Amino acid sequence: MFVKNAWYIAAMADEVGRTLKQRWILDEPVVMYRTADGKPVALYDVCPHRSMPLSKGELLGDQLRCGYHGLVFAPDGRCTHIPAQTHIAPSWCVKSYRLVEKWRWLWIWMGDPKSADESLIPDFHWNEDPDWIPTGGHFEIGCHYQLLVDNLLDLSHLAFVHRTTIGTDAVAENPATVSREGNAVRIVRSMPSCPAPPLYAKLIGYSGEIDRSQDIVFTPPSQVVITSRSVPKGSNEADKILEYRVLNGITPGTKSTCHHFWAVSRNCVPDPQVTKLFHEGSVRAFSEDVTVLETQQTMLDRMAGRIAWMHYNADGGGNAARVIVDKLLKREAAGATERAAMS
Amino acid sequence: MFVKNAWYIAAMADEVGRTLKQRWILDEPVVMYRTADGKPVALYDVCPHRSMPLSKGELLGDQLRCGYHGLVFAPDGRCTHIPAQTHIAPSWCVKSYRLVEKWRWLWIWMGDPKSADESLIPDFHWNEDPDWIPTGGHFEIGCHYQLLVDNLLDLSHLAFVHRTTIGTDAVAENPATVSREGNAVRIVRSMPSCPAPPLYAKLIGYSGEIDRSQDIVFTPPSQVVITSRSVPKGSNEADKILEYRVLNGITPGTKSTCHHFWAVSRNCVPDPQVTKLFHEGSVRAFSEDVTVLETQQTMLDRMAGRIAWMHYNADGGGNAARVIVDKLLKREAAGATERAAMS
Amino acid sequence: MFVKNAWYIAAMADEVGRTLKQRWILDEPVVMYRTADGKPVALYDVCPHRSMPLSKGELLGDQLRCGYHGLVFAPDGRCTHIPAQTHIAPSWCVKSYRLVEKWRWLWIWMGDPKSADESLIPDFHWNEDPDWIPTGGHFEIGCHYQLLVDNLLDLSHLAFVHRTTIGTDAVAENPATVSREGNAVRIVRSMPSCPAPPLYAKLIGYSGEIDRSQDIVFTPPSQVVITSRSVPKGSNEADKILEYRVLNGITPGTKSTCHHFWAVSRNCVPDPQVTKLFHEGSVRAFSEDVTVLETQQTMLDRMAGRIAWMHYNADGGGNAARVIVDKLLKREAAGATERAAMS
Repeated sequence: MFVKNAWYIAAMADEVGRTLKQRWILDEPVVMYRTADGKPVALYDVCPHRSMPLSKGELLGDQLRCGYHGLVFAPDGRCTHIPAQTHIAPSWCVKSYRLVEKWRWLWIWMGDPKSADESLIPDFHWNEDPDWIPTGGHFEIGCHYQLLVDNLLDLSHLAFVHRTTIGTDAVAENPATVSREGNAVRIVRSMPSCPAPPLYAKLIGYSGEIDRSQDIVFTPPSQVVITSRSVPKGSNEADKILEYRVLNGITPGTKSTCHHFWAVSRNCVPDPQVTKLFHEGSVRAFSEDVTVLETQQTMLDRMAGRIAWMHYNADGGGNAARVIVDKLLKREAAGATERAAMS
Repeated sequence: MFVKNAWYIAAMADEVGRTLKQRWILDEPVVMYRTADGKPVALYDVCPHRSMPLSKGELLGDQLRCGYHGLVFAPDGRCTHIPAQTHIAPSWCVKSYRLVEKWRWLWIWMGDPKSADESLIPDFHWNEDPDWIPTGGHFEIGCHYQLLVDNLLDLSHLAFVHRTTIGTDAVAENPATVSREGNAVRIVRSMPSCPAPPLYAKLIGYSGEIDRSQDIVFTPPSQVVITSRSVPKGSNEADKILEYRVLNGITPGTKSTCHHFWAVSRNCVPDPQVTKLFHEGSVRAFSEDVTVLETQQTMLDRMAGRIAWMHYNADGGGNAARVIVDKLLKREAAGATERAAMS
Repeated sequence: MFVKNAWYIAAMADEVGRTLKQRWILDEPVVMYRTADGKPVALYDVCPHRSMPLSKGELLGDQLRCGYHGLVFAPDGRCTHIPAQTHIAPSWCVKSYRLVEKWRWLWIWMGDPKSADESLIPDFHWNEDPDWIPTGGHFEIGCHYQLLVDNLLDLSHLAFVHRTTIGTDAVAENPATVSREGNAVRIVRSMPSCPAPPLYAKLIGYSGEIDRSQDIVFTPPSQVVITSRSVPKGSNEADKILEYRVLNGITPGTKSTCHHFWAVSRNCVPDPQVTKLFHEGSVRAFSEDVTVLETQQTMLDRMAGRIAWMHYNADGGGNAARVIVDKLLKREAAGATERAAMS
């Protein structure tokens, strides 16, 4: 069960063009493409006739033709052609989803179309702000999306999973504080006088100890923005500050897969070599997470019904996020019941 | 659930000899072989002792010895030897199926043996008629058998799936007429003044437009004979007629697999090179179908319980066939209930 | 469902050292290692925090640190460190299993710890007796453990499965006698005046016929000791006796996998070349069993609910063993109910 009335990243803007791209989102198959003038389109990827994925068909101008029996659908989902037939009943259509390009991503709304308010798209502007230098990518991970949210909201795992890249003992041994701001959860960790992690030392040439902090903001159902800030111990020299934001758009794929759209964006050291280092270091670190998350999911699957998690302080952020998501799920279920009762 | 009181093709005649061949048919494992004098034999491929597939054993003359504990079974299914034991109770036997060689295929009857009337074997004589030149083969496809029946009864898909081989727009844009003749369904499509498909042009050197027709006969549960006829537009010259029959014996394997036994037989152009072209063109076209059918089945599996098909005119043939099969299934279920009540 | 109050072989002694070894036993994941002074340790391989397998972590001295969030567990299962936290509630622990080294194997007790009596470990001393020359190994097999027990208790299969190694027709055609001794089952077969199987001829240079016997003892839930004895026909010359014991410790892995720990030990012909022949011959013969057992399990899985086994004399041993195991399972279930009622 997933929160449907929300914006999720469906793709990086440059992943979708004049070919057909299939992606499973919230356990529904979705086909995406762009019209000739660049407008992004997302349709339910199942032909209503005989269930052929429309993504196996082809574009006819701005329309999509099913590759099995040749039915044609417009970007709004209406069927516009059935071979050897003149009458097409209005019920011949596929679901069309709002798909909006913003911050160099395509955001999809799978819930009630009437609630699809673009102003609710999360503020991920650091991915196309002229003052910031972003780099990013996409992972498809074989785990439930909340395992990845948990992962990002408890960075104490950096000390163990990412020891060779961005982790040091300081991240695990300095407790974080958790606070709620409406439906958002904020997790803040200060790490004064700690050694620089290997990647940082490589990036900005730190020698000696640093003062480091992490400021994490979760907004439901599954967006996480991490602000990481480091300075040489006790220093405030502007050119020695390493600050970057890690933008995480997490999109449920199926019950046991998710998409991790990520960008790391900084406002300093505008050297392409440093961007390359950031990109490669991030890919390496996130790949370490993929291994952990898929191992965890495999164990959960094998032990189905025999798992009871224990909790400690560091779980405060992740657990608060789950409480909020559960509340939203209940509200959506209640709304659906209410609508059913009224109809 | 499958219609059991029916003849299905179990194998091409030359597939079965003096080695043991296993094939799943109607969701039952079947082992086939021939006795020393060539009589085809089909037995249930599960040893009644410890469930070892008998097909992993070996032939002892005309009998079959299980490869685990050495029990021996005769072609009629009787156990004839149990090691270290003299008494063999009559209950020691495996199910033996009627297996009849006709039209260069082996036809199996999996239902009530008393109803196994050989005169009911479908007329597929074009596969061994001296006036006809056949070529054929076998595909095992990862889809429910009715998806393949649907496919063959609505040839409008030729325009999209087989565009480079036997399809042109004419097949999709000329509607077919459907009629029922007892439990058979007949689908006829006339395509006057249409371009020759690529394969035809290659086969018989058509230039310019042709008059083309398809005459399809379905007999339950899953046999389909297609008669295809083409002449140069407006012509009636005998040596310019291209006529062939596509014989399709479709046999359920499991719930999600089927066997497609096919032959294409013509009564013209007795050139072996043309036979080769027919064979290669058919294999290429049927392989395109395999891709479509397995993609369709995969989507049906993933969307289990969330699929509702919509229908239009071109589905008339396939839907009529499904109605007939459903009626036969109900009749068999009622018969089983009646037999149970009487016993 | 498995008998839990019993000793099972978890590993060969030399398989477990200062790295982490995961093995599924009785459908539970178990992580094994040795402390710095060699004591074997077995813990439940699921971190109680977020279900990460502890076997993906690392050893810190004699303790084990989870590779995800760094929780540390002692050999007795107590959690000794949670990052950034001083208080650790006593409920923070993982199940620790008794793991005992005996006869060069590690034996695990997964049931009620209060009943873990080391004197109940089966007598497999032939694997480290100075008068005996053992060789052995381990197979993980894709079948329910009782299929392997059945296999070992009815050696008539030697004539068919192991014809090229240790089987001759004599094993199948001479009936065995079955007797019960408490919860043990004994199966004895005499084979006077029979040809030597290929491996024996190779091992000890028999020419002509031999007198051969098999004495099999099953102790529940799944230990099988086979004593095999051969002499030249009618002879009693000590140096012509070939006697060996096949020790089989069978451990359920999951519902459809098991571990076969085996050793073949002899008290004659102390030539290392003969040991090598014994080892290679045993591996070849057991590999033949693996093929049979996995084929059998695959058929049982595919035919789920449609299988009814028939029985004959040779099944006496295996069926008696199953009756005993069923009795033990019922007793354990009753004990669990009783404990639940008392608490």
